[in-house]
Amino acid sequence: MGIVVVGTVAFDTVETPFGRGENVLGGSATYFSTSASFFTDVSLVAVVGEDFPQEHVEFLKSRQINTEGLQQIPGKTFHWTGKYGYDLNEAQTLDTQLNVLMEFNPKLPQSYRNAEYLFLANIDPDLQMQVLEQVENPKLIACDTMNFWISSKPEALERVLKKVDIVVINEGEARQFTGEANLVKAARSIIALGCKRLVVKRGEYGVLMFTADSVFAAPAYPLEEVFDPTGAGDTFAGGFIGYLANTGDTSEEGIRQAIIFGSVMASFNVEDFSLERMKRLSYGEIEARYKSFKSLTSFRDITTL
Amino acid sequence: MGIVVVGTVAFDTVETPFGRGENVLGGSATYFSTSASFFTDVSLVAVVGEDFPQEHVEFLKSRQINTEGLQQIPGKTFHWTGKYGYDLNEAQTLDTQLNVLMEFNPKLPQSYRNAEYLFLANIDPDLQMQVLEQVENPKLIACDTMNFWISSKPEALERVLKKVDIVVINEGEARQFTGEANLVKAARSIIALGCKRLVVKRGEYGVLMFTADSVFAAPAYPLEEVFDPTGAGDTFAGGFIGYLANTGDTSEEGIRQAIIFGSVMASFNVEDFSLERMKRLSYGEIEARYKSFKSLTSFRDITTL
Repeated sequence: MGIVVVGTVAFDTVETPFGRGENVLGGSATYFSTSASFFTDVSLVAVVGEDFPQEHVEFLKSRQINTEGLQQIPGKTFHWTGKYGYDLNEAQTLDTQLNVLMEFNPKLPQSYRNAEYLFLANIDPDLQMQVLEQVENPKLIACDTMNFWISSKPEALERVLKKVDIVVINEGEARQFTGEANLVKAARSIIALGCKRLVVKRGEYGVLMFTADSVFAAPAYPLEEVFDPTGAGDTFAGGFIGYLANTGDTSEEGIRQAIIFGSVMASFNVEDFSLERMKRLSYGEIEARYKSFKSLTSFRDITTL
Repeated sequence: MGIVVVGTVAFDTVETPFGRGENVLGGSATYFSTSASFFTDVSLVAVVGEDFPQEHVEFLKSRQINTEGLQQIPGKTFHWTGKYGYDLNEAQTLDTQLNVLMEFNPKLPQSYRNAEYLFLANIDPDLQMQVLEQVENPKLIACDTMNFWISSKPEALERVLKKVDIVVINEGEARQFTGEANLVKAARSIIALGCKRLVVKRGEYGVLMFTADSVFAAPAYPLEEVFDPTGAGDTFAGGFIGYLANTGDTSEEGIRQAIIFGSVMASFNVEDFSLERMKRLSYGEIEARYKSFKSLTSFRDITTL
């Protein structure tokens, strides 16, 4: 089977200079699974409240996402309210209503436990660990996190990082976590904690991927219209891990290609609010943009002077 | 003949978290010509004061740079004092003593006038125009500028941009000049002014190069030790235009390759204060780092799922 993802399913209220979305579908697991569903089977673990409309569940199912692990419990769904300025690089959080997320107790249905790929989206590292204990023998584990856990639960987070193959993290968070201003040094010290590979997300500047002995730089796609960056990081991770699960090729070359597919998916997602662009995205468009990434970055080998 | 460059030769006093350089050799034309001298013949036009030591002139000559156009006039040499914080991305100017620069009247020696390549480094756009009027029929003209001229002399600057083939500019300045937060739109409106090609410098995030119908993204080289970013932009431009002058290949492919050589040169320059790294740089190191850029950025063509 494909990927199991554990994270949030949420309502977002987002304001950008180009418009406003009120109570729209959001959450890390939502963006991740929708993006990954273009490449592989995805099984979702998350919690929502009684107010979560069936229409959103139907959307996930229409993407062939397995929602057996989507718990619905008494209370309201997690709600994030944020705002972006013209530079669109960083969201300002205006309000966070955790609601049912405070009682999230991730339980993997029996059918999920032999997952080959596992993505731990940004949630409490203690819950990430709890999920790790429920999977049998995954081929690859990746995780994300955020500044809040870095400052409030650094030890729990370190325990998780030791168990995962790939860490996906924002540039600012990599610096914060390690106290290193230099990103290469920050990356080395995160890798020294025990993960094999670190993917640093740099927003409109793309990503840098580090292993102990290699670096790969992928730009973000230069877009003339960026409407809403919400979910770009999780959409990137969904395309990245989704493509890996599809090919099963975890060589350096295979992983680099997956990074580009992740970047492709993120570049589409920011073109509209919430998951609107994903809803009307075709695989042909994905392939065409992959080719555009190739021509965006290609240059000749050296010719001796 | 090779390149003529017009710009500043200066004393810099620079403080970074890693050390301090007092009255060290600096200036846009100095960085540009030293970097370009690894690839082609360079002829320099600039002004210095009576306090400019012969030792620095000897250094330029040791790089085979033609200093016939380096005027020495009564007064003191231009002196810039700046400081960088840990992020090293933007200098804070603490003091600017223009000194002899206020009387700079760029005059091209007769032997410079048939230059094939011309680089107008960051100086008053009226002086850049004055230089343009003295060259006969260059194959390629490139220019740089800065926020100060964008706000104080936008019309003069526009007149220059209409006459040049390649504009090299900082990301923030491209946004400031056009009033566009979106970089792709900012680039389109600068190109609409009449230049053919725009190279946007993004510091540690590399460069984006735009034409009316193409974009090229080159990362900066991820370095574990960055000591002093002063002159990185001019060193980039020197490697870029220097390599172009060497090959004469102004096809898209040729220009992309030159962009990588520019990025290679900038990546070395930041490894030490002032021009210290340039002084001990070999062509073998340049070629090796070009190859590292290739492996930093390369990924497979698409394979159909």
